[in-house]
Amino acid sequence: MVETLAPRAETAPFLEAAAALLGAKGFTTDPDAISPWLTDWRQRFTGRALGMASPATTDEVAGLVRLCAAHNVPIVPQGGNSGMSGGATPDETGHAVVLSLRRMNAIRSVDTATRSATCEAGVILQVLHEAAEAKGLRFPLSLGGKGSATVGGLISTNAGGTQVLRHGSMRALVLGLEAVMPDGTVFNQLVPLKKDNRGFDLKQLLIGSEGTLGVVTAATLKLEPAVAAREVLWAGTQSLPQARELLLLAERLAGQALEGFEVMPQHSLDAVRDYLPGARQPLAEDHAWHVLIEMVADADGAERLPDLAQRVLEEAFEAGLIEDATMAANETQAEAFWNLRESIAPAERALGPAVQHDISVPVEKMPAFVEEAVPQFEAQWPGTRAVGFGHLGDGNIHFHVIAPQGVDRASWEAGDGKAISRQVHDMVTAWGGSISAEHGIGQLKRDELARLGDPVALSILRHVKQALDPQGLMNPGKLI
Amino acid sequence: MVETLAPRAETAPFLEAAAALLGAKGFTTDPDAISPWLTDWRQRFTGRALGMASPATTDEVAGLVRLCAAHNVPIVPQGGNSGMSGGATPDETGHAVVLSLRRMNAIRSVDTATRSATCEAGVILQVLHEAAEAKGLRFPLSLGGKGSATVGGLISTNAGGTQVLRHGSMRALVLGLEAVMPDGTVFNQLVPLKKDNRGFDLKQLLIGSEGTLGVVTAATLKLEPAVAAREVLWAGTQSLPQARELLLLAERLAGQALEGFEVMPQHSLDAVRDYLPGARQPLAEDHAWHVLIEMVADADGAERLPDLAQRVLEEAFEAGLIEDATMAANETQAEAFWNLRESIAPAERALGPAVQHDISVPVEKMPAFVEEAVPQFEAQWPGTRAVGFGHLGDGNIHFHVIAPQGVDRASWEAGDGKAISRQVHDMVTAWGGSISAEHGIGQLKRDELARLGDPVALSILRHVKQALDPQGLMNPGKLI
Repeated sequence: MVETLAPRAETAPFLEAAAALLGAKGFTTDPDAISPWLTDWRQRFTGRALGMASPATTDEVAGLVRLCAAHNVPIVPQGGNSGMSGGATPDETGHAVVLSLRRMNAIRSVDTATRSATCEAGVILQVLHEAAEAKGLRFPLSLGGKGSATVGGLISTNAGGTQVLRHGSMRALVLGLEAVMPDGTVFNQLVPLKKDNRGFDLKQLLIGSEGTLGVVTAATLKLEPAVAAREVLWAGTQSLPQARELLLLAERLAGQALEGFEVMPQHSLDAVRDYLPGARQPLAEDHAWHVLIEMVADADGAERLPDLAQRVLEEAFEAGLIEDATMAANETQAEAFWNLRESIAPAERALGPAVQHDISVPVEKMPAFVEEAVPQFEAQWPGTRAVGFGHLGDGNIHFHVIAPQGVDRASWEAGDGKAISRQVHDMVTAWGGSISAEHGIGQLKRDELARLGDPVALSILRHVKQALDPQGLMNPGKLI
Repeated sequence: MVETLAPRAETAPFLEAAAALLGAKGFTTDPDAISPWLTDWRQRFTGRALGMASPATTDEVAGLVRLCAAHNVPIVPQGGNSGMSGGATPDETGHAVVLSLRRMNAIRSVDTATRSATCEAGVILQVLHEAAEAKGLRFPLSLGGKGSATVGGLISTNAGGTQVLRHGSMRALVLGLEAVMPDGTVFNQLVPLKKDNRGFDLKQLLIGSEGTLGVVTAATLKLEPAVAAREVLWAGTQSLPQARELLLLAERLAGQALEGFEVMPQHSLDAVRDYLPGARQPLAEDHAWHVLIEMVADADGAERLPDLAQRVLEEAFEAGLIEDATMAANETQAEAFWNLRESIAPAERALGPAVQHDISVPVEKMPAFVEEAVPQFEAQWPGTRAVGFGHLGDGNIHFHVIAPQGVDRASWEAGDGKAISRQVHDMVTAWGGSISAEHGIGQLKRDELARLGDPVALSILRHVKQALDPQGLMNPGKLI
């Protein structure tokens, strides 16, 4: 348990003003109240904080940001605290205030005519899902942390998930945005215009900026018609290049109906079977690679969907792309298939220490990348096991290298683990890829971005950051 | 005919260095060669220039930009010179160099597997269309100026067109981007990654920045499967609210098949019939409003498309939304329908002086906006005729106010015309809309943006501009 620092003499006026501005519900320096929010959920980073602000309105956020600017107090915005890169965890100096958006949790509207929802930053993803469903709509982004992830956090990290293939990442789903800028002014572009060419797209600049340029306080999000039917397919195949051919076939035949395309090696599935009580693999035999395909249709296409799914599998068999396949017979089975996929990360973690990499390369290169990387890392670090799984359709896999049996976690992670990560990032960069496909940079990958990022892009990032946050108070130590 | 200025003594070293860098084909100060490019195609703006650079490679562009930075010479990037807002026309000082991208016109690749094309900034839209078609694909953005508009210009202005409803504007179609920044460095993000969370989206920052932050030199663009079938429908309806109901019905029934939804009042159609030899209106009777609907399908959905189109019209009749309707019997008729729509702008121009406004409001508000605006402007300025037509599905219409018969063009445009435009912009702003939906700001609307833009957004724009272009040499006098 880490305690917050005792208030330093010079911070007293700030603490008093913050308490006066936000009231007892909105500001605390109580270590017990703050402590859970000082460690990221993967428990890699723990920081300290002067206090935690939990404003209830955009005006209160703006007031706090102005107060922080006046007193030179850094701000660490935080949503559900379930980010993967430590982007919402303060540093160890204890100079910063954690700005929780969780009290701003109102869904202001769900509009069926415009198919959009306007909600505050603290709305939890699952709550948004339910609100959309209640109106016959859906918000087409989901991920493992949906029970804690907030709209503000999803926007600030440009979150991905399993439906990016069809719907894009968060960036593509934000129609309107409201944010408090570092000077305390409010950027209000909540009212969505489908077409607006009044200058650079400031909304897109803020999305994915990890709280380093401002604090997202509300958003208008795109909704889609509810899914009227879905088919979840499971196929076994010999190689990733064949899985990629299957993807192209499915895209050609199913078009917009194709919503998810995930791959996993037999090793990952074995790990899940060991980890998940009662888990069964969908196919009778082992296969080098397993593919999970989700196809969906709205009311108009629901009737044709089973035939379409059948046709994808038939043509894949005929083309020799798959060895075996099955379709989920009902929703329970469909959920069970997805549960296998979503359990890979915890199942791999249960195998012991590992280094994990959220990487992307151009989609068409991913099979070759994995086929080259896996044996290379396993040969270079004897006893390790390299595993790639995930969003093949997006060119994004999670590449884990699992430590040899019996090593000491801390020393392996600090030694070989770190060296392996550097080498993974070097290789990804050489292949024209990204060291952060969907998890963001945060504090976890900041140094690696500085080491490997394109110098021109980094220079632009730094100039924009300096221009909009000259005091450097917005989420310092993250991203850049 | 406006002549370029005679080189000033202090510019001689720059001119010599530019000529040495780019050669005779790449740099000229010949007034006859430059003159056509000093006036925008709507002939509202005419400027002067030190010279015209036509580099052949990105390296040459970078070299020229560095040279300009060293000699403090402003740069006005130019593509097809068919922009609507004077964004590619230099000012009258003659201090700037026009940087034409037209020699950079290579299509580097059209890739069927990744459904993308990589091309240089000077590639003309129609050439790109043809290159995509030759591979069974299409680039789903088109507009009237497709024979001159270049990829670089389309990106710099975030161009729209008639397919935004389904495919989005240019911003949504750019997968990768290469640009020369104001310091002469090259931002290279041409290789498309479907997922990449390494900081703010600099690509999106450059798109739509009208050359004020850098010079787009190449792009990787998204392609779609070729259209296998299309149905073009024409319907007559009593009011814009009914047209909007028809849009919602079509969206509900046709989903992704709905690609275009354009509206025009009877007055516009009458103007086209007067203007276009042999033009016939598709329906027997006059209607207050006419709707043009385009539905398309790729190979998979081609068979069902006629039924789907039929169903849209039948349900619209049953719901009392339309008075009459027809479907184009063949491609010739389909083209004739579209030709009516695309001839509105020139036909209205032929009616005499007018002020034109490219505006958007939230989609659901557009019918009410037009119903309120048309009588208001006609009443306030007796003898004028107010007309709104265009992209109802995007909440974007072109709102023209046609001068009374017989007025003097110049004095009307400078007097009443200007006052009307200000009032249109005031009204659009009050309705939460945009004074530039798709044509950009350029020099045409720069002062109006400064007058009516959100101060917070303008402040961010200016800070970003100052940070990336501290010398203020990139397309000065445009946008901000």
